[in-house]
Amino acid sequence: MKLTYPQARLIFLIFFSAFNFSVHAQRNTVEQQINQLLSKMTLAEKVGMIHASSSFTSAGVARLGIPELVMSDGPHGVRPEHGRDWDTSNDHVNDAGTYLPTGNALAATWNPQLGYKFGAVLGSEANARGKDVILGPGINIIRTPLNGRNFEYLSEDPFLISKMAVGYIKGVQDQGISASLKHFIANNQETDRTAVDVEMSERALREIYLPGFKAAVIEGDVNTVMGSYNKFRGQWATHNYYLVNKILKGEWGFKGLLMSDWGAVHHTNEALYNGTDLEMGTDLGMLPKPNYAKFFMGDTVITLVNAGKVPVALIDEKVRRILRVMIKTGMLDKSRKAGQFATKEHQQTALKVAEEAIVLLKNKDQVLPLNAAKIKNIAVIGTNAMKPNAMGGGSSQVKPTYEITPLMGIQNYVGSKAKVTFAKGYEVAKNAIANQQLIAEAVKIATTADQVIFVGGWVHGYDFSKWDDNAYDAEGVDKKDLKLPFGQDELIKSLLKVKPNLVIIMMGGGPVEMNAWIDEAKVVIEGWYPGMEGGNALANVIFGKVNPSGKLPMTFPKKLEDSPAHKLGDYPGVNGTAVYHEDIFVGYRYFDTYKVEPQFAFGHGLSYTTFKYDKLDVVAGDKKVSITLTITNTGKKDGAEVVQLYVGQDEPKLPRPEKELKAFQKIFLKAGETQTLKIELDQTAFQYYNDQLFQWVMDGGKYQILVGSSSKDIRQVSMVELKP
Amino acid sequence: MKLTYPQARLIFLIFFSAFNFSVHAQRNTVEQQINQLLSKMTLAEKVGMIHASSSFTSAGVARLGIPELVMSDGPHGVRPEHGRDWDTSNDHVNDAGTYLPTGNALAATWNPQLGYKFGAVLGSEANARGKDVILGPGINIIRTPLNGRNFEYLSEDPFLISKMAVGYIKGVQDQGISASLKHFIANNQETDRTAVDVEMSERALREIYLPGFKAAVIEGDVNTVMGSYNKFRGQWATHNYYLVNKILKGEWGFKGLLMSDWGAVHHTNEALYNGTDLEMGTDLGMLPKPNYAKFFMGDTVITLVNAGKVPVALIDEKVRRILRVMIKTGMLDKSRKAGQFATKEHQQTALKVAEEAIVLLKNKDQVLPLNAAKIKNIAVIGTNAMKPNAMGGGSSQVKPTYEITPLMGIQNYVGSKAKVTFAKGYEVAKNAIANQQLIAEAVKIATTADQVIFVGGWVHGYDFSKWDDNAYDAEGVDKKDLKLPFGQDELIKSLLKVKPNLVIIMMGGGPVEMNAWIDEAKVVIEGWYPGMEGGNALANVIFGKVNPSGKLPMTFPKKLEDSPAHKLGDYPGVNGTAVYHEDIFVGYRYFDTYKVEPQFAFGHGLSYTTFKYDKLDVVAGDKKVSITLTITNTGKKDGAEVVQLYVGQDEPKLPRPEKELKAFQKIFLKAGETQTLKIELDQTAFQYYNDQLFQWVMDGGKYQILVGSSSKDIRQVSMVELKP
Repeated sequence: MKLTYPQARLIFLIFFSAFNFSVHAQRNTVEQQINQLLSKMTLAEKVGMIHASSSFTSAGVARLGIPELVMSDGPHGVRPEHGRDWDTSNDHVNDAGTYLPTGNALAATWNPQLGYKFGAVLGSEANARGKDVILGPGINIIRTPLNGRNFEYLSEDPFLISKMAVGYIKGVQDQGISASLKHFIANNQETDRTAVDVEMSERALREIYLPGFKAAVIEGDVNTVMGSYNKFRGQWATHNYYLVNKILKGEWGFKGLLMSDWGAVHHTNEALYNGTDLEMGTDLGMLPKPNYAKFFMGDTVITLVNAGKVPVALIDEKVRRILRVMIKTGMLDKSRKAGQFATKEHQQTALKVAEEAIVLLKNKDQVLPLNAAKIKNIAVIGTNAMKPNAMGGGSSQVKPTYEITPLMGIQNYVGSKAKVTFAKGYEVAKNAIANQQLIAEAVKIATTADQVIFVGGWVHGYDFSKWDDNAYDAEGVDKKDLKLPFGQDELIKSLLKVKPNLVIIMMGGGPVEMNAWIDEAKVVIEGWYPGMEGGNALANVIFGKVNPSGKLPMTFPKKLEDSPAHKLGDYPGVNGTAVYHEDIFVGYRYFDTYKVEPQFAFGHGLSYTTFKYDKLDVVAGDKKVSITLTITNTGKKDGAEVVQLYVGQDEPKLPRPEKELKAFQKIFLKAGETQTLKIELDQTAFQYYNDQLFQWVMDGGKYQILVGSSSKDIRQVSMVELKP
Repeated sequence: MKLTYPQARLIFLIFFSAFNFSVHAQRNTVEQQINQLLSKMTLAEKVGMIHASSSFTSAGVARLGIPELVMSDGPHGVRPEHGRDWDTSNDHVNDAGTYLPTGNALAATWNPQLGYKFGAVLGSEANARGKDVILGPGINIIRTPLNGRNFEYLSEDPFLISKMAVGYIKGVQDQGISASLKHFIANNQETDRTAVDVEMSERALREIYLPGFKAAVIEGDVNTVMGSYNKFRGQWATHNYYLVNKILKGEWGFKGLLMSDWGAVHHTNEALYNGTDLEMGTDLGMLPKPNYAKFFMGDTVITLVNAGKVPVALIDEKVRRILRVMIKTGMLDKSRKAGQFATKEHQQTALKVAEEAIVLLKNKDQVLPLNAAKIKNIAVIGTNAMKPNAMGGGSSQVKPTYEITPLMGIQNYVGSKAKVTFAKGYEVAKNAIANQQLIAEAVKIATTADQVIFVGGWVHGYDFSKWDDNAYDAEGVDKKDLKLPFGQDELIKSLLKVKPNLVIIMMGGGPVEMNAWIDEAKVVIEGWYPGMEGGNALANVIFGKVNPSGKLPMTFPKKLEDSPAHKLGDYPGVNGTAVYHEDIFVGYRYFDTYKVEPQFAFGHGLSYTTFKYDKLDVVAGDKKVSITLTITNTGKKDGAEVVQLYVGQDEPKLPRPEKELKAFQKIFLKAGETQTLKIELDQTAFQYYNDQLFQWVMDGGKYQILVGSSSKDIRQVSMVELKP
């Protein structure tokens, strides 16, 4: 047989790839096993494996013992069943499981060990539900607070993302299930998400948008990556040569499979040649049943290969990656151990994450924690207090075994010791504005209560049975602005007038503008979407059973216009293109450097105790900088502090952020306890990406080492001089 | 003033750029001069410089002594004047100058010194005509013989292109005029040229499509590069991040300006950020006068900068590159020496290039050279013999001082010593087929002639006053097939029946299918478009005053279907995308490796004398391989031989062409003379681009060193073993 060059080239790449693994005998055996399987497969069988065979599967080859690859949304729980072709009822399926807090809640814990536990729950439940791949984590950078999908994502900071995502992925994959890292890359808004072309500098790409993905691939060894809907520098991200072939598979040596987001493939040849391994969800219409063979990577590929237009080795390479993932996750030898579904342990993880995620933003006059023993009459105000969230937000929806709302959590906590009254305060409905009758009712019950707790913020949507009722924190739609919907500002102001000690809890996937009342408010809590145990976690924090330790994983601006994507960048784009003019100055990198005062800074979060930072010592060694400091719990309660270490360069050659997060450690200290913390920074902590040289560079010179309790609350500073 | 990061970044890049030059005091002074000019310019003045101010100029700043930058087509002569806004008559302008042979004729000389002379004529005439930039050379790879613009381009082989283009560029630029290297990149067809998206492997890009451009930038130090119309990997080539910022300006350190082709800019932000320095020819309608301020890089840029959306440093960087070119070419200090126009010397260069370009493809029974003394009655047949070509083909048109057609050249040569009769033989007209009356007339005069010379082949078009009469070798349109138009095959067969010694001369920008008559034909000459002196050159070759030494710079296939772009690749593309499936197997790399017999091989060309290759000796040194051999003119006529050296790897790890051109030398030998040739190859001659590692690699192993008279006529072979 005469090989065409592309055929032979790809066969070479396969050998090359096998060679790379030759130090690992195990891996070598895997490649041999794959070679044997490939040699037995027909072209049609191979092509069947690289595109969907149903809404959430790709085909297997039963005669060779290759099963279908079964995928499921989503990042914070296994999605409800919806029928093989979206066509059957799910009424008879036991698919009510663990609903974990969403992505930015997880990130707010700043606890990678919890990332691991979170992932392990997800992997275990996906396993028990017969899934092979769980479509998470979502780690796109939180570039604008308007992005409807921020609630699924982690942070504005690539370092925090990296640490949390690696934990999450290892958690999932240790359960024998593949994580799917998404959305690769620059899917930073939902407006025009399927069409917008993203342009950014190489430096922004390398310093901000890629590091999380790179860590997930290299440190997390993630099995699958999902390409995003948008274009990047003019080419669809899912079949983008530069992103997929050059960076992901080339520079980073990713050996797993690159799947499309559902409907993100647009062109057969681009997909074949630019690294797409698996095409999912292409929209061909639903009735009576989608003809999956009509996918871009379906029968057309068979025709092209048979015509000699596309080398079969190109298909083999994709099948090889899929088989590699299948073997790694025990799908061929059926060595995967059973998972568990909807267990008490999983629910306890959901609770633990929520408790560590909740951020105490403001606590003037130490209003919190509330003393449950002294409060006999609690008024809970706000529809959010009784609104479940699990089934909202789009593809990340989860059917929970149960969902403890804030109201339920508070009621659970106080039991019969206090009377809990509730008033809606506002109507959750499209275009709803302040409802004077509801406000009057709320003020009325507030006036007579010992303590008033307001629960407000965002909702995913109005009616979860309708996708187009997606509203605020939801797939496919961005927020219009950061103003509290439904007249909540007016309600809060009215409540503050009668109860200055009002506890304000904000639910949702990120900041709201608080200007209307923040100066008068004594207590503000960020509650996120805290999962099925969220109400219990909130109650535990409010009443002091849990000492809050969550820290903001994104800046809360005073107003939308202060956000760099809006101040400098194109959002949502001009003529179909979004240019990230703000460049590397995303999040606190912008607020710090441009001296814009945020409402609450990145890394901010209060505790019921106090921590003293002391004895910062910085020693520059040969290829590392060693840092030690002591942290003492100087208050009367046990608690946890997230010690944050930032690095800033003096007089950088190239403009750099005032400081950047380079290490953090969450430490648990009993009241009065002191701990010495040792942190080592290698040279990557001091590098920037020089986009003239196309490489990471560490300049010689002076660097500030800043440690503190938030990006604005720096407690100790030292200087170190480094040689280039 | 507070700098935004992108502003500061670009200012850094400017300093960085200046720093790079600091070893050159002269260059440093240039950058200082630019800094001073920039500091005095208004934003509007800067923006004026980065887009057209008329059809072929960009604005200057008169108050600062910065003139307009004046451009002109084209690659083989200075284009006729056409009015500042395409609006005035050119009747009263002295614009009839030197019409040089076109690009592939130049390449067929395989003589880089002639490349230099050719460029020097062009530069000198552009200078005399008041131009600053001449839009050439065009060096796109000849991927398919159908490409309408092949006649302007050089070759299918990147090494030959590199050597010829570097000579050409130095020739132009030594006259104080900037060359403009075009079209960057992958403008390899005219069909859908403004829309097609080209997809190719990184290896094809690096090994085939980029090397000519790289050599022109790095060795040729070309001042300007023109971006092409097409898309590359989804993004318009002219504002393509990977091509322009990453490769051209990043990897290759190009310091000159990147201009658009006329109408190739499509998006303000992409152009600003992805390296386009000058926008030309955007179509805004012509009447009463185009409003150049409406260009993508016009007033919109002023608005964006004033709104803080685009940093002025980004504009400065473009102006800097334009000023750098202006200073280098003596435009600011008016140090440029005067050029010359339409001189005898220039015409002699046109003649010399044509003589060395003509390729004797077949000369059975040594029919050529004709003995003028013995021939009393010559019949010249074929409309091409009397059809001028200078004003055809599109933007490369030239108004020549005169143009010697083949008929004129033959008549000039024989003077009154022989009777020259002429018959058209075929009609040059749209859809014209064999005309039996014209064939009968032709056969009639042929029958009674001592010698018959047929002149046929391609024509640019039918009526050069109409752009859309472009037909075969012409901008904007590809050939439909490779079959001789106008019924020429039937005519040739009829002539061969009466005169087997028929001399067949093919004019045009590349191969035709010759199957209908090649076995019967004894003499075939490829005459290209040989410029204003072409007829004289042809006569000199036919009658033996000049011994032919031209060699094919591209393979002549037996039939179109044998060409790799048609056999394996997408041509002209599928759904708007052309995938270069044939990959690195372009031209002879395909025919050799895939064992497809060409009609005439790459590098082929006969002489009236014979050459003996002997004593090939190959010595592997430390970082180079030294090769010596002797060449002897073993015939009775003085002549020139192009000694071609090819390298092939034994058992390559990655599929490679059977052999690749790595050196050549045109040597002139008197009858009986022997010359020893020394060639040194460095390791680049043995490398391939490994697109798994994203780098050039030289494997250890055995390499064949092949020297010969064409890619198929290898005379001596040796082997060398190299360490990696």
